[in-house]
Amino acid sequence: MAIARGDGTEPYALTVLYGQRHLEEVEASKRVAAQLGAVEHKFVRVELDAIGGSALTDAIEVPKDRDESKMTDIPVTYVPARNTVMLSLALGYAEVVGAEAIYAGVNAVDYSGYPDCRPEYIAAFQTLARLATKAGVEGRPIEIRTPLIQLTKPQIIQRGLELGVDYALTHSCYDPADGRPCGHCDACLIRLKAFESLGMKDPAL
Amino acid sequence: MAIARGDGTEPYALTVLYGQRHLEEVEASKRVAAQLGAVEHKFVRVELDAIGGSALTDAIEVPKDRDESKMTDIPVTYVPARNTVMLSLALGYAEVVGAEAIYAGVNAVDYSGYPDCRPEYIAAFQTLARLATKAGVEGRPIEIRTPLIQLTKPQIIQRGLELGVDYALTHSCYDPADGRPCGHCDACLIRLKAFESLGMKDPAL
Repeated sequence: MAIARGDGTEPYALTVLYGQRHLEEVEASKRVAAQLGAVEHKFVRVELDAIGGSALTDAIEVPKDRDESKMTDIPVTYVPARNTVMLSLALGYAEVVGAEAIYAGVNAVDYSGYPDCRPEYIAAFQTLARLATKAGVEGRPIEIRTPLIQLTKPQIIQRGLELGVDYALTHSCYDPADGRPCGHCDACLIRLKAFESLGMKDPAL
Repeated sequence: MAIARGDGTEPYALTVLYGQRHLEEVEASKRVAAQLGAVEHKFVRVELDAIGGSALTDAIEVPKDRDESKMTDIPVTYVPARNTVMLSLALGYAEVVGAEAIYAGVNAVDYSGYPDCRPEYIAAFQTLARLATKAGVEGRPIEIRTPLIQLTKPQIIQRGLELGVDYALTHSCYDPADGRPCGHCDACLIRLKAFESLGMKDPAL
């Protein structure tokens, strides 16, 4: 969202409540959208937990302290079709508010093996978006922008710092307890290591 | 679903509660899934009404007694990105239950101008489905089957009759009152005309 603002856009924020086991990331999205000055912040509920199949929606244990070499497999934290559902909702919202682009923070470098974070997946969704919508049919296709997709985690953090992002407001952990990141899931390990490599302390910890 | 059964599959039914203004079609889906012997019937809620932009979710009037020549425009009953959201949910559900295919009843002939009912849209979703899922990455892509896409409405009705579909259980109307179809919206007009052309009376009326 900081990059979207840096591009000169007036961003509308969308948070999807998909039955995730904790709402820390939802609270963080409110803080971040408010700080970065979203024109509107929309919350849409979709019952992905009714479908199941993931440690992020079901009572399946989130892996802790995994060796980084294992993070290239598709993990149990993969939520079937989640990014497709979220991008579809963003597409509908973008069409209703007349937006020219959707910004999504997917990342293919530290993507932990999620198939729906890869550039070829995003390219396929772009094609779909052109064909799926009234906007696309009328020659105003909504562009899918993924400015983080080829950056490493340290590069992402640095880009954010340049744009004034306050990382103390953010949340990445899959399995927080009492509102605090666990420090041991894949998301925490990748984030901690990235801050370390920049000689910094993670301000959210 | 009758065609899926005819193909020798064991169908799982999915109904999406997307904030539609009436629940007649949801009740009809329960009757039809039960009669055709669904292995399971899943209901998933998604708040498309929070996004808005359609006569099917908002307080926008459903057009009545439209001239058929006007039905090629994209109408106010178009719900932004609805089929993309519904197919995405079906994709997640298909992956969780290990299904080999998704059957969708979209139709490009009497499609009333909806962009997300066209063959090129379905082909794009098929490409996306291959790239989006763990199943696709592992070489077991989920196939999108749209057996009605190139049939006329009378051909669809005949195909259903051959397969034993009881049309008295079904519902098509956009704007029913007291549980009865209105007889005047695009969906009713197209359906009535199709039964008429077969020399039949619509058993749901």
